[in-house]
Amino acid sequence: MIIDCHGHYTTEPPKLHAFRDKQLAGLADKSRRPLTTNLGISDDEIRDSVQGAQLKLQKERGTDVTIFSPRAAGMAHHVGKEATSVEWTTICNDMVHRVCTLFPNNFVPVCQLPQSPGVQPKNCIAELERCVTQLGFVGCNLNPDPAGGYWCDPPLTDEWWFPLYEKMVELDVPAMVHVSSSCNPCFHGTGAHYLNGDTTAFMQFLTSDLFKRFPTLRFIIPHGGGAVPYHWGRYRGLAQDMKLPPLSEHLLKNVYFDTCVYHLPGIELLTRVIPVENILFASEMVGAVRGIDPETGHHFDDTRRYIDALPLSAEDKAKIFEGNARRVYPRLNAHLDRRAH
Amino acid sequence: MIIDCHGHYTTEPPKLHAFRDKQLAGLADKSRRPLTTNLGISDDEIRDSVQGAQLKLQKERGTDVTIFSPRAAGMAHHVGKEATSVEWTTICNDMVHRVCTLFPNNFVPVCQLPQSPGVQPKNCIAELERCVTQLGFVGCNLNPDPAGGYWCDPPLTDEWWFPLYEKMVELDVPAMVHVSSSCNPCFHGTGAHYLNGDTTAFMQFLTSDLFKRFPTLRFIIPHGGGAVPYHWGRYRGLAQDMKLPPLSEHLLKNVYFDTCVYHLPGIELLTRVIPVENILFASEMVGAVRGIDPETGHHFDDTRRYIDALPLSAEDKAKIFEGNARRVYPRLNAHLDRRAH
Repeated sequence: MIIDCHGHYTTEPPKLHAFRDKQLAGLADKSRRPLTTNLGISDDEIRDSVQGAQLKLQKERGTDVTIFSPRAAGMAHHVGKEATSVEWTTICNDMVHRVCTLFPNNFVPVCQLPQSPGVQPKNCIAELERCVTQLGFVGCNLNPDPAGGYWCDPPLTDEWWFPLYEKMVELDVPAMVHVSSSCNPCFHGTGAHYLNGDTTAFMQFLTSDLFKRFPTLRFIIPHGGGAVPYHWGRYRGLAQDMKLPPLSEHLLKNVYFDTCVYHLPGIELLTRVIPVENILFASEMVGAVRGIDPETGHHFDDTRRYIDALPLSAEDKAKIFEGNARRVYPRLNAHLDRRAH
Repeated sequence: MIIDCHGHYTTEPPKLHAFRDKQLAGLADKSRRPLTTNLGISDDEIRDSVQGAQLKLQKERGTDVTIFSPRAAGMAHHVGKEATSVEWTTICNDMVHRVCTLFPNNFVPVCQLPQSPGVQPKNCIAELERCVTQLGFVGCNLNPDPAGGYWCDPPLTDEWWFPLYEKMVELDVPAMVHVSSSCNPCFHGTGAHYLNGDTTAFMQFLTSDLFKRFPTLRFIIPHGGGAVPYHWGRYRGLAQDMKLPPLSEHLLKNVYFDTCVYHLPGIELLTRVIPVENILFASEMVGAVRGIDPETGHHFDDTRRYIDALPLSAEDKAKIFEGNARRVYPRLNAHLDRRAH
């Protein structure tokens, strides 16, 4: 089985965007606020939104299940106030839940969190609990920079975040560390802010003893870990200079990397320096890069082809494609068992 | 000849740090300001500061010349006001000039700039001109984020920076894009902020037509280009989705990468995806990572060994070690010619 651990609902029905426009218009002029949170989106509209896109690509590429969450750039935690984020998050998570309910063989849900700059992450616990215990979500996306490129909240290793981590541990769900859109003109979203977020989070973890305090807390760092595997020697060296234990002991029981790296040399590097136990297959389709690579004739984000091309054993590939995801997202197993019957 | 294009004066005599302490103490209490900018540092103190460090390592590693600039983290443009930065920059550049004058066969100077958050970069022109025309400097380090991790100034592609670029073009000197220390607790300096700065600058260049306006402007992106080569497929794909020309045409006549990547798999990736014409040898010693890699028994930052191990032709290696640096820093040639005689 091939599990893609990183897919976003980037093909939402237009009515969701219309709602968001009204919601944000309402910040400036209350009279424009949407009158209801019932979007009037039919099941057919949801089916149509994924059938020609994610579902079609799953079939074409021979992948089975996508761990599916709301559009990352759409979270936009920096926009409006906490109440804006809470309302929008609930709606986006409910949309993802509907997709996964309509296509239980193809999608398993992961939630966004109602974060807001300067607001304590413990305020996200209720939504995480609702999604996991009532709606069958298997994880969450955690934004290390709710300020959207201004990085004003404490690092992920600060106790500011601990109440949320306690709930993640209790529910046994991991978080993918994923920034949202950038409102800082210095940072292009998918070309800079995303990768910077990944690199930054890893170094925050490295310089902390977070996983001594939370030994079962698990994070997936997407986009192949940002700059980290390319600079693995730098990180090993920095850790050694700081008298830290080897990274395998210090971080790799808790930190995982996905395979959203859109060329073979990058994936080769990733799998050479990071243990296969710490790599989860992912493509982020339909996502940041949508074209066909003229050098290969295939989509840049058809990452299965890169894994297939690696000189790894079938057993190692099975870990990347399936086994590691089942281990990192334990609640995924119930979904996959149901699927099998 | 082996030219290391990226070395900082990280072993400064203690008197320089004592001056800096007084200078910054003077911001809080004017009575503590240093009475003079004459640091009282003798030539012997300068010789001692590099003889057991950079000079010794050059010999041990078999490299010849280092393009040498003030400590990057020490620039700290975010500290104090513009006048603080101007005074400190002059002193640091003068120190580097003294090192290079004492050891003209081993060091060629590059300057820091008196940047300050919110202050127009054109105010740096006088110091750039002084260093290049009076003191023989061959380039500068340009901080894309003088705010030290808060990224409050415009992107490098904004006309805010153009007067400085005009002077760089006129003087025919390149800039290494190099952030300084981070005062944002989210960002570790050498493990996150440095690499993020590299990635960010590249994407700023990619999304602009800066090099149409300045066809001879040249930038070196250090630390192997941050996350860029590892995600080269992503960047090719993003550019293609934006209908931009291939990156080789769009950027690679103006943007270069150094080899400060501290393990062989990283250097292999770099040289597989980036044309050899765009790669400049560098080690950044004595710098971010000072230990010995237990996997190799050699210093992490002994990057010459990685290049030596590559399956490249002697001609290609000569480009990386020497030819490209001579082309990107044309004023270097006069120094090297003098050295030869």
